[in-house]
Amino acid sequence: MVKKISLLGATGSIGTQTVDVVREAPDQFKITALAAGKNIGKLREIIRETEPEIVSVDAPADATLLSGEFPKVEFVHGREGLIEVAARSDADVVVSAVVGSLGLEPTIEAIRNGRNIAIANKETLVAAGDIVTAEARRHGISLLPVDSEHSALFQSLNGEKAERAERLILTASGGSFRDKTRDELEGVTIEQALDHPNWSMGSKLTIDSATMMNKGLEVIEAHHLFGMPYDRIDVLIHRESIIHSMVEFADTSVMAQLGSPDMRVPIQYALTWPDRLPRKGTERLDLAKIGTLHFEEVDLNRYPALRIAFEAGRTGGTATTVMNAANETAVGLFMEGRIAFTEIEGLVERVLDRHAVISSPDLGTVLEADSLARKSVLDMVK
Amino acid sequence: MVKKISLLGATGSIGTQTVDVVREAPDQFKITALAAGKNIGKLREIIRETEPEIVSVDAPADATLLSGEFPKVEFVHGREGLIEVAARSDADVVVSAVVGSLGLEPTIEAIRNGRNIAIANKETLVAAGDIVTAEARRHGISLLPVDSEHSALFQSLNGEKAERAERLILTASGGSFRDKTRDELEGVTIEQALDHPNWSMGSKLTIDSATMMNKGLEVIEAHHLFGMPYDRIDVLIHRESIIHSMVEFADTSVMAQLGSPDMRVPIQYALTWPDRLPRKGTERLDLAKIGTLHFEEVDLNRYPALRIAFEAGRTGGTATTVMNAANETAVGLFMEGRIAFTEIEGLVERVLDRHAVISSPDLGTVLEADSLARKSVLDMVK
Repeated sequence: MVKKISLLGATGSIGTQTVDVVREAPDQFKITALAAGKNIGKLREIIRETEPEIVSVDAPADATLLSGEFPKVEFVHGREGLIEVAARSDADVVVSAVVGSLGLEPTIEAIRNGRNIAIANKETLVAAGDIVTAEARRHGISLLPVDSEHSALFQSLNGEKAERAERLILTASGGSFRDKTRDELEGVTIEQALDHPNWSMGSKLTIDSATMMNKGLEVIEAHHLFGMPYDRIDVLIHRESIIHSMVEFADTSVMAQLGSPDMRVPIQYALTWPDRLPRKGTERLDLAKIGTLHFEEVDLNRYPALRIAFEAGRTGGTATTVMNAANETAVGLFMEGRIAFTEIEGLVERVLDRHAVISSPDLGTVLEADSLARKSVLDMVK
Repeated sequence: MVKKISLLGATGSIGTQTVDVVREAPDQFKITALAAGKNIGKLREIIRETEPEIVSVDAPADATLLSGEFPKVEFVHGREGLIEVAARSDADVVVSAVVGSLGLEPTIEAIRNGRNIAIANKETLVAAGDIVTAEARRHGISLLPVDSEHSALFQSLNGEKAERAERLILTASGGSFRDKTRDELEGVTIEQALDHPNWSMGSKLTIDSATMMNKGLEVIEAHHLFGMPYDRIDVLIHRESIIHSMVEFADTSVMAQLGSPDMRVPIQYALTWPDRLPRKGTERLDLAKIGTLHFEEVDLNRYPALRIAFEAGRTGGTATTVMNAANETAVGLFMEGRIAFTEIEGLVERVLDRHAVISSPDLGTVLEADSLARKSVLDMVK
């Protein structure tokens, strides 16, 4: 039976790689709904290829334009359009690959609509993990991780009793600047930050990887996905990104998932789970050719973003919401050339310091905290 | 509920480590039957500690002696005694840890008696894999691997569809002489051969590890345990023995089991499967402390025993029986100082060359081929 897929964030890195996976197995998958933002050129190609029933775009004008080009497709637009696509989809799985906390509302709508979620939008779990996991339990749906680390944890937990998992070990490449000291980070450029050593991914994610805020977001995501306390989640620097993450069990056994760094593998796994399908386009792992795998502890002084994330995670409530929103805004400012790379973490920490945490927020409170945190960052750099 | 364990090969390396595991969890395990050979001093300790119902020893005199010391325990002896312990046991699991093809008959008897087998005696599967796996299927029992490599494969296959496994990747430390060239192996001593870099194990196994015949036996064992064709079983040199083995799946994902080199972990897993229990006595894996893992291809010219084992495995039938028996005998001769280390593989190959393979042997034929192969080796070195 062909699995119907609703793809939110179609033109981004995860979105286009999801289209790759679908293209390689047309007998298995069919994309029936798409949501994208402003990249209409790329979206046009994807619509042509996938022939969805409904598409959401950011701007009304784009919806009108595309309606003319694709008369068989229904177009909607804006935040409401995105939520509509997520909510009314009849897909077997909704791939939530919108970048940033914009993905939160449509993901919750998709859960409420009883859809399994392939979750690539980690900000959703960081901003509102308690709400999202509670909704998932209530509606009996599966949250299938797409991040390579969380997919690795998910695969390592396969066939195991969850209560026997003692520790989650997230591996981290160390990002584009891993060989630089803290002092050497002064004055690094956007171009340097975007040059990730192992993975091909979106630019926000690549910057987060360089600060290691990305790993911090992943720690919080892992906490919510697998119900693991923060003091049993470790981060380990592993330059080669071959071991994608590990689970240590009560008997000291460690299960790990390894592979070539190719996001299409965890994307496909989220779509085929609990089965696996052959992947043609991915290079098989050849450890003899790679020769050596390295591991080292993370220095939280070198990577303050990771320390901030652990602290925000332990605090809980709106702390992670605010951290995420402040980080997104600060990264945006760096990308616009308005702040230095080394100012990102400081801005996030200052916003967090000023925030009065609300411990069990509802969705409205989360959205408000998110919005205020963004404004705070912008105010600070005026 | 306490699991009752019958332990065949109690005084050997796996046997005493099984006693360690049982000692650490007396609320979980109880040893009810023991079989040992000639190491009466060690056996006496184990009987005192475990208080079994029945014990088998090699010599009638030892049985009589021990009967006087332990009046509550029933003693039997010899090959028949060993088989009797295996056959009539009411244990939940029989740990088959007799070294060499002596373990074959009692293991088959235990299977016929409907017992699950924790199989540490790889020679059983090498000598008569088709017979053993057919009996296991017929009696609906589980063959639970105890070898660290096979336990790792078993754990990596946990929760997966077996038909999605594309390749088994057995890791090999390279043994005591891994840094020596073929030429440098001339004249190595027994003491040098017994000095294994990573694992604490019996002497026959340590010699097999140095020739890599051990890995050859494991390849054949893996073929039978997991029904995998030989051309989809790889061996990879991994000096640190931290990744205990891996399974590559259809989607290029590789699942691996890692841990400190401690045989008590896979022994315990075989006893607790499908659950896991905390292990107190084993050091947790600390990859940051280890720092680096190395991988390299195996050179079959450097390790001819591995080539011989793959060839014998592909030939099948009595070829692996003969290979195993010839190897056991040749290793015995090396341990007695009667042949050089480098003569082991040549003897095995010459015996195999002269053997007319029988393709679907019954148990009698297997035992006969085994016995003839031993005699052939001895004849060759007269």
